[in-house]
Amino acid sequence: MDLPHGFRFAGRATGIKKNQAKKDLVLIISDVDAVACGVFTTNKVCAAPVQVCRDRLPTKRARGIIINSGNANACTGEQGLADAKEMTASVARLLSLDSAQILVCSTGVIGRPLPMAKLRDGIPPLVNDLQDDETSFESATLGIMTTDTRPKTAFRSIRTPEGEIRIVGFAKGAAMIGPNMATMLAFILTDAVASADDLQVHLRRAVDRSFHSISVEGHTSTNDSVILMANGAGGASAHAAGDAFAQALDEVAMDLAMAIVDDAEEATHRLTIDVKGTRTEQEARQIAKAVADSPLVKTAVFGNDPNWGRICSAAGYSGVDFAETDLSLRVNGTLLYDHGMPTAFDPVAEHERMKARREVDIELIFELGTAGCRFWSCDLSTGYVRFNAEYTT
Amino acid sequence: MDLPHGFRFAGRATGIKKNQAKKDLVLIISDVDAVACGVFTTNKVCAAPVQVCRDRLPTKRARGIIINSGNANACTGEQGLADAKEMTASVARLLSLDSAQILVCSTGVIGRPLPMAKLRDGIPPLVNDLQDDETSFESATLGIMTTDTRPKTAFRSIRTPEGEIRIVGFAKGAAMIGPNMATMLAFILTDAVASADDLQVHLRRAVDRSFHSISVEGHTSTNDSVILMANGAGGASAHAAGDAFAQALDEVAMDLAMAIVDDAEEATHRLTIDVKGTRTEQEARQIAKAVADSPLVKTAVFGNDPNWGRICSAAGYSGVDFAETDLSLRVNGTLLYDHGMPTAFDPVAEHERMKARREVDIELIFELGTAGCRFWSCDLSTGYVRFNAEYTT
Repeated sequence: MDLPHGFRFAGRATGIKKNQAKKDLVLIISDVDAVACGVFTTNKVCAAPVQVCRDRLPTKRARGIIINSGNANACTGEQGLADAKEMTASVARLLSLDSAQILVCSTGVIGRPLPMAKLRDGIPPLVNDLQDDETSFESATLGIMTTDTRPKTAFRSIRTPEGEIRIVGFAKGAAMIGPNMATMLAFILTDAVASADDLQVHLRRAVDRSFHSISVEGHTSTNDSVILMANGAGGASAHAAGDAFAQALDEVAMDLAMAIVDDAEEATHRLTIDVKGTRTEQEARQIAKAVADSPLVKTAVFGNDPNWGRICSAAGYSGVDFAETDLSLRVNGTLLYDHGMPTAFDPVAEHERMKARREVDIELIFELGTAGCRFWSCDLSTGYVRFNAEYTT
Repeated sequence: MDLPHGFRFAGRATGIKKNQAKKDLVLIISDVDAVACGVFTTNKVCAAPVQVCRDRLPTKRARGIIINSGNANACTGEQGLADAKEMTASVARLLSLDSAQILVCSTGVIGRPLPMAKLRDGIPPLVNDLQDDETSFESATLGIMTTDTRPKTAFRSIRTPEGEIRIVGFAKGAAMIGPNMATMLAFILTDAVASADDLQVHLRRAVDRSFHSISVEGHTSTNDSVILMANGAGGASAHAAGDAFAQALDEVAMDLAMAIVDDAEEATHRLTIDVKGTRTEQEARQIAKAVADSPLVKTAVFGNDPNWGRICSAAGYSGVDFAETDLSLRVNGTLLYDHGMPTAFDPVAEHERMKARREVDIELIFELGTAGCRFWSCDLSTGYVRFNAEYTT
């Protein structure tokens, strides 16, 4: 993997997590001033670091991001804000930067003050560790994890007449994933030369198609953040690359979003929900989200049960107006429901087909218009319930 | 229990359910023409019997209701409509009534044609069984059950200057309970003299406070129906009883709604969610529903975990605008979150308190206005997932 030029990474364990040996503090630094933009949680209860990033990003520039895992610094009031700012100030001081050039993210347990003594001790050696090699990048990908079972990374490169553009992304997230993101952090870095306004447009589009189109359990978190930095160190411009840049960015975001769904806590199936033939994309998304979030649909999938009744009735309460005869449904390619009537399919064969694959394809076909969307979710398992009944406080 | 005068009941087993010995066909008949009204599912995918009732209720009159369990007669197209109508016609013929005077409800598996041969055989003896005694009433309450573990009944009587008014209700429902009801059927019968318009107002109000304020997993069903009949056989008028009639009706509906939440599939806790201090009741309901339906809140409660972070963040994504400092939270009377900040409560003591009681009281206190609401839900258990992964098809 050829990392984007001009970025350095570090990840260390400072003892924030129960398992003190696990990495919990991460730093990303661009060697030069970078164009930056972000998309953040819409939750009204939002974490201190999200508020700090929102305050700083109107400059559309940043030099780096300091991230901790194990503690979300959410619901922590004025102290939380002061702590988030202190994290950025500590990094800035050691690198002779302005603290306004450093962004900050946190993920983990809500409502506990950050263990600032550990962070104060941890930041100087973290800054010393900064390297542009793969090992340091890997440390960063590990250091942002909470209940994730594995790091999530994506990489694309594009050849342009002006030279190569590299885009790398890494993310964390395995629950509290509703669209409008989740306890989901993603960092996307590129060495392309790019305008801040173009970058924001590309990011918004990429996020809508990826992170905003996945749901684990529909619970929008307090800390969701996607941050994109372009430092121009590669010399080639995103603009010159044309659609290829937007396409590569979409793919990186999509790879990361799929990695999150595939690592959803104790899930056994990934659901791909295609809604077709609605009047608007918004209608399609509303239907997809109702299906994706229905516990009855999700438990049926866990049981490998082609329960089309639960899927169709979830569409029916989505708030979108339609007649039963407007709707047909395919699961794993088999037509189960045809213009308001169940077909004579073989439930045992469909059960076996569901059981045989991790992927489940759900296709809701309406005859209302030409819009549609694709959305991803996962099943709801006994393991998920056990896991989330036992996690904290 | 002194049943409302002038109603007869019957319940029989006709072999619709897997366990052929279980009652599955129920008839309620008023000896005289009764005023009737109903509230039905808002699901766009709605069952044939719901369509038949909607078509007939504009008359505001009915003589009876035929109900089967074990098959929802939903997603069954034109045949389903014809079958639902035939059920009412068979009853009407045997009682020398018009089929338009008979309402019909079904509950059970979606998408299978009704086994009409069994129903045709079952209806004549069912009509013969009609009695006004408690044993027949009990047969009716058993015959509407699906995954319910017990029948759900409620009874109130009111003394008025004109004599006594009796109100009895029975219901079924244990899942697919989102507000706007669920695979939920409820029948409320009174011998009061009442005007159809008054009755509709009283019923709507009672349903909003009860069946529309409970959620098991937020999945609105295709078959939800609440039907109220007042036959005047007691001679006393609801109007003369004043508020006492509305109050008694509210209580019957509330008792039934609570019985449904308490019988929620494999639930171990009942959640009572009070939202206070919002600008409007609508805002309060939106917040309550977000909390009630959050799988992360529900699994935390299953684990007896006073996880205020999940509760507050669910309120945060409800779509209602507020600042963190507007919100305080009590769980089981203990203040866990005070104007945007967690309190120094004892998590072990709170865990033990949750564990000791089936009831969990969640109180979200805002400082935005003077409106509020009360809402009920249940926890999400490993048993629920197992149960719903295994149920049909």
